[in-house]
Amino acid sequence: MRLALLGCGTVGSEVVRLLHEQSADLAARIGAPLEIAGIAVRRLGRDRGDLPVDEALFTTDPLGLIKRDDVDVVIEVVGGIEPARGWLVEALRAGKSVVTANKALLAEDGPALHDAAAEGGADLYYEASVAGAIPLLRPLRDSLHGDRVNRVTGIVNGTTNFILSAMDATGAGFAEALEEATELGYAEADPTADVEGFDAAAKAAILASLAFHTRVTAADVHREGITEVTAADVASAKAMGCTIKLLCIAARGRDAAGRETVSVRVHPAMIPLTHPLASVGDAFNAVFVEAEAAGQLMFYGRGAGGAPTASAVLGDVVAVARNRLAGVRAPSESAYADLAVRPMGEALTRYHISLDVADRPGVLAAVAGVFARHDVSIATVRQGSADGPAGSGDAELVIVTHVAPDAALAATVEELRGLDIVRSVASVLRVEGGA
Amino acid sequence: MRLALLGCGTVGSEVVRLLHEQSADLAARIGAPLEIAGIAVRRLGRDRGDLPVDEALFTTDPLGLIKRDDVDVVIEVVGGIEPARGWLVEALRAGKSVVTANKALLAEDGPALHDAAAEGGADLYYEASVAGAIPLLRPLRDSLHGDRVNRVTGIVNGTTNFILSAMDATGAGFAEALEEATELGYAEADPTADVEGFDAAAKAAILASLAFHTRVTAADVHREGITEVTAADVASAKAMGCTIKLLCIAARGRDAAGRETVSVRVHPAMIPLTHPLASVGDAFNAVFVEAEAAGQLMFYGRGAGGAPTASAVLGDVVAVARNRLAGVRAPSESAYADLAVRPMGEALTRYHISLDVADRPGVLAAVAGVFARHDVSIATVRQGSADGPAGSGDAELVIVTHVAPDAALAATVEELRGLDIVRSVASVLRVEGGA
Repeated sequence: MRLALLGCGTVGSEVVRLLHEQSADLAARIGAPLEIAGIAVRRLGRDRGDLPVDEALFTTDPLGLIKRDDVDVVIEVVGGIEPARGWLVEALRAGKSVVTANKALLAEDGPALHDAAAEGGADLYYEASVAGAIPLLRPLRDSLHGDRVNRVTGIVNGTTNFILSAMDATGAGFAEALEEATELGYAEADPTADVEGFDAAAKAAILASLAFHTRVTAADVHREGITEVTAADVASAKAMGCTIKLLCIAARGRDAAGRETVSVRVHPAMIPLTHPLASVGDAFNAVFVEAEAAGQLMFYGRGAGGAPTASAVLGDVVAVARNRLAGVRAPSESAYADLAVRPMGEALTRYHISLDVADRPGVLAAVAGVFARHDVSIATVRQGSADGPAGSGDAELVIVTHVAPDAALAATVEELRGLDIVRSVASVLRVEGGA
Repeated sequence: MRLALLGCGTVGSEVVRLLHEQSADLAARIGAPLEIAGIAVRRLGRDRGDLPVDEALFTTDPLGLIKRDDVDVVIEVVGGIEPARGWLVEALRAGKSVVTANKALLAEDGPALHDAAAEGGADLYYEASVAGAIPLLRPLRDSLHGDRVNRVTGIVNGTTNFILSAMDATGAGFAEALEEATELGYAEADPTADVEGFDAAAKAAILASLAFHTRVTAADVHREGITEVTAADVASAKAMGCTIKLLCIAARGRDAAGRETVSVRVHPAMIPLTHPLASVGDAFNAVFVEAEAAGQLMFYGRGAGGAPTASAVLGDVVAVARNRLAGVRAPSESAYADLAVRPMGEALTRYHISLDVADRPGVLAAVAGVFARHDVSIATVRQGSADGPAGSGDAELVIVTHVAPDAALAATVEELRGLDIVRSVASVLRVEGGA
């Protein structure tokens, strides 16, 4: 069984190392030895440390490598949309099995890859694309196929989880926590993809597609990052017995006409400390699944890093290699349900709103009136003293709503901002996990 | 695709219900409808509530049902060794796919089932046998096949976890907590299989077999239950920042000659509150996996109950049904590694020992001498006041060891019991999870 490896960075070199160290075990599990046919890299002659491979295997011609007759399986760990898409479509159409960790490509144009796989009769595996080493896609795709998944809630980006955990632990602001994450190597020099939620949104699209048997792309995902989460927000969450996490949420629902839909979104939210996701700290990932019969499940582990990602890649390599030896193919993409993706405004959410208001009679009535006008039901109200000097005439009003369409909640906040008696909207956060 | 269901109790009736409710989804996922060909029960004519099946499907002849030409898949949810073994061997040899939740049978005689499956060219799936709805066996069998699992530590018995959680929360003794569990339906009238660790040991054997590619049976598993865990033990654990859980542990190691071995054991142990397994409360299950490249993973969910178990059964049914339609078979049992199972005495463990000793000079030296004679290294010693009245001349000595062979630790405790200055050994508990 001969492998073409596209990319030899952090993940690729770990794949090479594991293939070498565990070759006897892998051969026994597959029934045939795995051999590297070639490794496509951008530049030859770079020092690759003590990688246990023949220098002659390196090439700068990925397409040439893919097309070679002796290549059975193509492993792509380069990332990005192009040229990876062209390579993988080519490989799949030619009937080569593909194992990829490329979440951006799968979320952007998964259907093109699945179609090419069907056309070439090839396997397309991508366990490493979401939550690194955590076996998650296979359980969703296989183990839960006798059940009905209602909701998937995940912490799927290690960088933002590290930053939010640091903010929670030290009271630091976002900028300071980001700086620490960068120094420690948890954030990249350009952290945009992580902190703005693009990475989590790609993973949300992949998870939603599998959980709901529906094609969901990154463009379908409502996305908010964590750059606007403040130390005050974190403190508000703590006062509520909560912590703030960047969540990816994919949930089943119904539209006004009663048709089943899904909503897929990524945004920071407060979750209660008693929720299993609350204790997922540092750069760990975890995904919480709620299914009709299975109830609540959680999968937890390292979501990134060379070795964990390589573990997921090799698990897929063993699977596709076995399939090839047996002359079979894994079940195709399952997208039969084809549910409509509901816009964010229709998603049902809860808000936690903290207001600095004038300390005078009638304020609560006026504020409550705004909620009522938007048909938003209030769950709890807490009145406290604001930060202003005593006797400044300011008070704090903390309101947690019941579940309502997100658009109604957003409109409520907008109208509150315009109220004369509201000095400022200090914090607005969604609340998840039954707080 | 026609199914024979053996057993129609809590799990079986949930299987029937889910097959009915989700028939359209299941058919779409498989590519063919599922139909119940027959249901074998002990007695006909029993009131089965509002089960959505034709009464004519019930039969008291399981073997006759299995042998019918129109049966493709046999689902066994009866449990126990016989007659289930005979039925399943018969079904597998006849080339019918088998889905079973029978942990006792798999742990007692898994090889006989695997051999019959190989003989008949049939699939044998048993996700529901360990940790109910948690997709665990498939990830171990498939997703982690590119990695090297070093250790599996699990809470796999809900009854004992409920009892220990109650003891931890209320300070109750074992008998009292068991009574509460029985009243609430978490413990059976005869709780032996649960509280003596037989159930967990069966699951440990199944997990170890998959994780280490080695045939491990229940007889290979060292087993201690929780009946001797006292309120004092629980208090000792709390004082250490720990909690007590009944753990199943399967770990890779080496024997004196340097050969790779596995040790598989079930016993109560202290784990630090910071360990992910510590917060698994009530009747929940969780399994913590440590793998070479993937690092630490955890799987969490409901380990028992009709609906969760039925979810796992149906996930397997979808898989074997797809395989049959595609004319393929899942990879066979993987037992190539064939590691020796190390006896408990050679397993490396740590002890927490609490002693009531005479309060006089030289006591610590004498006690430390016993540890030294058995080559057991002490990690921490804490001296406190014992429960006796002030001036009674008693003191408390709490010792936590470093890792040592279990036999050496047990011999140390035995010798301590005989020491003149040791009034009593108040508590002995193993410590796991890096405390």
